Amino acid sequence: MPAVKKIAKLVVCGVGLIGGSFALALREAGLVGRVVGVGRRPEPLAAARQLGILDEICTDWADALSGADLVLLAMPVGQMDAVAAAMAPHLGPDTVVTDAGSTKRDVIEAIYRHLGAHLANVVPAHPIAGAEKSGPAAAQSGLYRGRKVVVTPLPENRPAAVARVREVWSACGAVLHEMSPQEHDRVFAAVSHLPHLLAFGLVHDLAGRANAEQLFSYAASGFRDFTRVAGSHPEMWRDICVANRHSLLAELDAYLAELAYLRALLVEADGPALEAVFADASRARNTWADKAFPAIPSGE
Amino acid sequence: MPAVKKIAKLVVCGVGLIGGSFALALREAGLVGRVVGVGRRPEPLAAARQLGILDEICTDWADALSGADLVLLAMPVGQMDAVAAAMAPHLGPDTVVTDAGSTKRDVIEAIYRHLGAHLANVVPAHPIAGAEKSGPAAAQSGLYRGRKVVVTPLPENRPAAVARVREVWSACGAVLHEMSPQEHDRVFAAVSHLPHLLAFGLVHDLAGRANAEQLFSYAASGFRDFTRVAGSHPEMWRDICVANRHSLLAELDAYLAELAYLRALLVEADGPALEAVFADASRARNTWADKAFPAIPSGE
Repeated sequence: MPAVKKIAKLVVCGVGLIGGSFALALREAGLVGRVVGVGRRPEPLAAARQLGILDEICTDWADALSGADLVLLAMPVGQMDAVAAAMAPHLGPDTVVTDAGSTKRDVIEAIYRHLGAHLANVVPAHPIAGAEKSGPAAAQSGLYRGRKVVVTPLPENRPAAVARVREVWSACGAVLHEMSPQEHDRVFAAVSHLPHLLAFGLVHDLAGRANAEQLFSYAASGFRDFTRVAGSHPEMWRDICVANRHSLLAELDAYLAELAYLRALLVEADGPALEAVFADASRARNTWADKAFPAIPSGE
Repeated sequence: MPAVKKIAKLVVCGVGLIGGSFALALREAGLVGRVVGVGRRPEPLAAARQLGILDEICTDWADALSGADLVLLAMPVGQMDAVAAAMAPHLGPDTVVTDAGSTKRDVIEAIYRHLGAHLANVVPAHPIAGAEKSGPAAAQSGLYRGRKVVVTPLPENRPAAVARVREVWSACGAVLHEMSPQEHDRVFAAVSHLPHLLAFGLVHDLAGRANAEQLFSYAASGFRDFTRVAGSHPEMWRDICVANRHSLLAELDAYLAELAYLRALLVEADGPALEAVFADASRARNTWADKAFPAIPSGE
């Protein structure tokens, strides 16, 4: 593998778990000169500087983008439109821009809306990594090791810009994949956005009960794992759900049909049919988990 | 604490994760003389004997119950009726019987139906512990350490029999609670049975898709944790869902109302209302998990 060209100046917009971990991984790989942070609120930026994630904080896009080699947009996707508009006048012809948004169609619409003059160098992507803890304090250099990054290149992208984004994520330890934005948003509605919505919904339902405290006191490790994603960042997930609501509604409706089927089986006390569903699911889930997470004992 | 009287002969019916772990814990505590296993199928019993969980296998309730001090019924709850009927003619007046069923009203109905002459000594209970791996090979002496055991005593129980069941579970490291069977079944419908049904349903829905392989290939740690309980024992969960279907249907309907609300917010792209739900859920979930699982970093 040829040596990866250094990033003399990296700009990260939204220095939380995702942006912070990207900067730390590139620092650890010795690939980054200066890391500049941009964001809405001063506190996380100051914290990120304190933690050694950032070298510098910019409050102004002109300063931030001046001489930038690479920009990672890692704020919640709801800010993409405003950020793309603010960047546009200051973006140089050689700066490569990528993002870490969990949805791709809305991000790409914002790119076309505001960065039409820069499409050669703006390469949308999505790292499949996260944790229910957010913020720069949760950032870690190893977050992307062995994780997938899905790149959804634009037809207008320069091949060299796509290759640059791929090699930088590879340097973080990630495994690269490509998909169309439409396919990306459909797939992640099913395996990520819907489970988040379902977990948020269950905890919200129970937390509003008069006996919520009793209920939670008897909840055990199954409930803990089922609801782990309900501990996620509310604004980030608001933005994802709104941005990808069409695919998410299609998935939710498919799931509601499944629940209607299970409900009918419960009403009829149809044990054999319930067992058939559970056996299918159990087999599929354990086969998948044994393959996808071979190192992790599933009884953890 | 006064010394716990030894169990000269312990009978375990259903020697899987739950029954096997109970026997191992009492063995480790030095509280058990001989452990006798009873069950439908010879293979798990033979495996349990091989693993040192059992000293002896009985194929006959008369032999098994002769001179038994304590009986734990740890088979799926759907077998309770047949097992109680089979035991009844052979149960001695001094043998204490308890169970480990995840539902209590149906177990108690079977007890009244078949063990009416023995109600003084039959004490229903439910250890709140499990793992998605089942069978005797998954059994471990530490399974119940720090876990709750809910006892739902019958009005006819001798206080000494209830005390005996409590002290034996305490010796396994468990923390004892008492509830009415009705309250038990309502609480666990909400925090255990519904999450299992929801997780089984999601995996079943996705596994049946034409692009199931692609979907699973992009599923990550959030999906892994959300679906962990979908790896559980299909027959056991069939029995629980059928036995507790009335409480479970009430919980499912409350959840469907929550999903209908979330669906309406998605249709309207109502970001602020979605964020309010997610923020409530996130706060409740993290507050609970930090308290309930203080030793486990939530980003595991």
